[in-house]
Amino acid sequence: MTLTVPAPVAAGPPAVLDRFRLLVEPELRAAVAALHPDLARMAAYSFGWCEADGAPTEGSGGKMLRSALALLSAELVGEAAERAVSGAVGVELLHAFSLVHDDILDADERRRHRPTVWKTYGVGPAVLAGDALFALAVRAVAHTQHASDPGQAVRLLSQTMVDLCQGQAKDIAFEQRPWTGPDQVTVAEYRAMAAGKTGALIACSLAIGAALNGSPPRLVRTLLKSGRRLGLAFQIVDDVLSGIGDPHTTGKPVLNDLCAGKKTYPVLVALSAPGPVATQLRTLLAAHDDLAGRGLVRQDDEDLAQIGGLVAEAGGYEQASLEARRLVQSGLAALNHDRFHAGVISELEGLAAFLLDRSA
Amino acid sequence: MTLTVPAPVAAGPPAVLDRFRLLVEPELRAAVAALHPDLARMAAYSFGWCEADGAPTEGSGGKMLRSALALLSAELVGEAAERAVSGAVGVELLHAFSLVHDDILDADERRRHRPTVWKTYGVGPAVLAGDALFALAVRAVAHTQHASDPGQAVRLLSQTMVDLCQGQAKDIAFEQRPWTGPDQVTVAEYRAMAAGKTGALIACSLAIGAALNGSPPRLVRTLLKSGRRLGLAFQIVDDVLSGIGDPHTTGKPVLNDLCAGKKTYPVLVALSAPGPVATQLRTLLAAHDDLAGRGLVRQDDEDLAQIGGLVAEAGGYEQASLEARRLVQSGLAALNHDRFHAGVISELEGLAAFLLDRSA
Repeated sequence: MTLTVPAPVAAGPPAVLDRFRLLVEPELRAAVAALHPDLARMAAYSFGWCEADGAPTEGSGGKMLRSALALLSAELVGEAAERAVSGAVGVELLHAFSLVHDDILDADERRRHRPTVWKTYGVGPAVLAGDALFALAVRAVAHTQHASDPGQAVRLLSQTMVDLCQGQAKDIAFEQRPWTGPDQVTVAEYRAMAAGKTGALIACSLAIGAALNGSPPRLVRTLLKSGRRLGLAFQIVDDVLSGIGDPHTTGKPVLNDLCAGKKTYPVLVALSAPGPVATQLRTLLAAHDDLAGRGLVRQDDEDLAQIGGLVAEAGGYEQASLEARRLVQSGLAALNHDRFHAGVISELEGLAAFLLDRSA
Repeated sequence: MTLTVPAPVAAGPPAVLDRFRLLVEPELRAAVAALHPDLARMAAYSFGWCEADGAPTEGSGGKMLRSALALLSAELVGEAAERAVSGAVGVELLHAFSLVHDDILDADERRRHRPTVWKTYGVGPAVLAGDALFALAVRAVAHTQHASDPGQAVRLLSQTMVDLCQGQAKDIAFEQRPWTGPDQVTVAEYRAMAAGKTGALIACSLAIGAALNGSPPRLVRTLLKSGRRLGLAFQIVDDVLSGIGDPHTTGKPVLNDLCAGKKTYPVLVALSAPGPVATQLRTLLAAHDDLAGRGLVRQDDEDLAQIGGLVAEAGGYEQASLEARRLVQSGLAALNHDRFHAGVISELEGLAAFLLDRSA
């Protein structure tokens, strides 16, 4: 007799995301609703809660990953998730701010299958909407009630905001740097950039619930260290999706980052690989350096497809995925401390696995 | 015998501004210098410390009014000015942030006789430079050392940031409103807008030194109330300068605000005045409403000059200057409380008088 083995079902988002959404989203919506109607509409659009004209959308917005990390952060140190809601709201608002402004910086026209905020409402209004989200984030954490140490959380959040801007500045400066030669961007420089651009906020999320509730700085630092590794993994997965993700799922054009001259992990790793494929890739990208005087790879679909193919052939995407896995493992291993609840670490593992295997 | 009476010398900036600059500017420069070089250059340019290419400029930057208020705030409650330096740095950074972003929102190309930051470095970089200034402001206050209540100061600063964005949103929304008819902007609406756009940060400045040093909330609220009146006066003086100031002194084109459809105090007051001049003004502006469907007054220098003349003739600028004087008086009167040092109130009076009579 043969057993019928069911086909493996692709794991959906972990249940913890839905459980936490119920705690955070009402507070988040209340914060946004208190804004001037023009700002509230742009903010709600950025969260995916409404159409451009303000009409409510069906279904939920983003993954709300960062707010889930903030609530897990409290649970890791034995506090109720409810005691980290203001931190969760803060990091989610800060994330929304960064997306709205980043899309202006990168002149990106599409996000999550829709026109970006600046494309929909204009650059000026989008700048102001981002500022308002930024301001709300700080206010949410600074005005936390029933937490023993909002001061520690605000210090953490403000340092995160600075790190985020620093990372963004590096990311943009890298666009002007060549793909090859002595001025090319190194993998170490990439790591420092991504640690700011993406790692800082994910690290802050994983630490803010503990920080709010008076955890000792040493423990908060351990959470930050773990979170920075998860955050770097997250950015590398993003880079892979930008290269070989399905644009119907990611909601962004394929090889968008490459066109913009962004220095992503898979391309940097492929460029420094041994063998003839990497040599061919370097030659092709060096031609773009000569042509444009900067890293842009524009308006030449054939070249673009060839570069993407060479990055894959040189093992760029594979190496990147491996590195993301290693980073998640070492990030979780950093939490091996008897002050953190083992059951909560398991939930975090589930969340991290979902992030590694996500398609958008 | 007749005495030779010397011609009256125009009063320069009060000495307190120079005294306080020595305390604040080194900290401010240190905060900015820690940024990524690209961000540091844009920030320094926005403060007037360097040219577009980073070469140092001669002389000092802005008035640094807000930081002076923050230090006076500490002295008002009997603390040393030194104990409010982080707050002073915070409000000055927040002011710089708001100028950089406002110039993007308003598409203004000139400020302080120079191209604006976005005009010099591009919109994307200017957005990021503003964000970095914003982040530094919060970090400066949140990481205050040797103050008894940084938490109170951070709560104040974060509420100020929200109010500032709300005021900006109103200011922009007003541009789309007509000059005349049932949808016209009222003076009361103007006050609420200016209370956010300008009043909030000046009020925060006048309160943050006290807040940092553990003054009771009741006293902080009194300082906020006083500061909001001074801030509203400041905005009204700004409006007057935009109308009849010398562009060689203000560093901005004449009637810049009117062109943009901004609803300024002198024009709103002139529109609601009795008599035939106001009627003529209403008729002229109503034609612009009909023409453009919104408040813009563009590319018609003759019309512009005529409108400016009618606003003056209807007493708009005179009424505005009177109102600014009244607001300063009532703002200073609000400080009539035995917890505030009389000698410091005198210094504040000197500063307020300078603000009323400034030409830029």
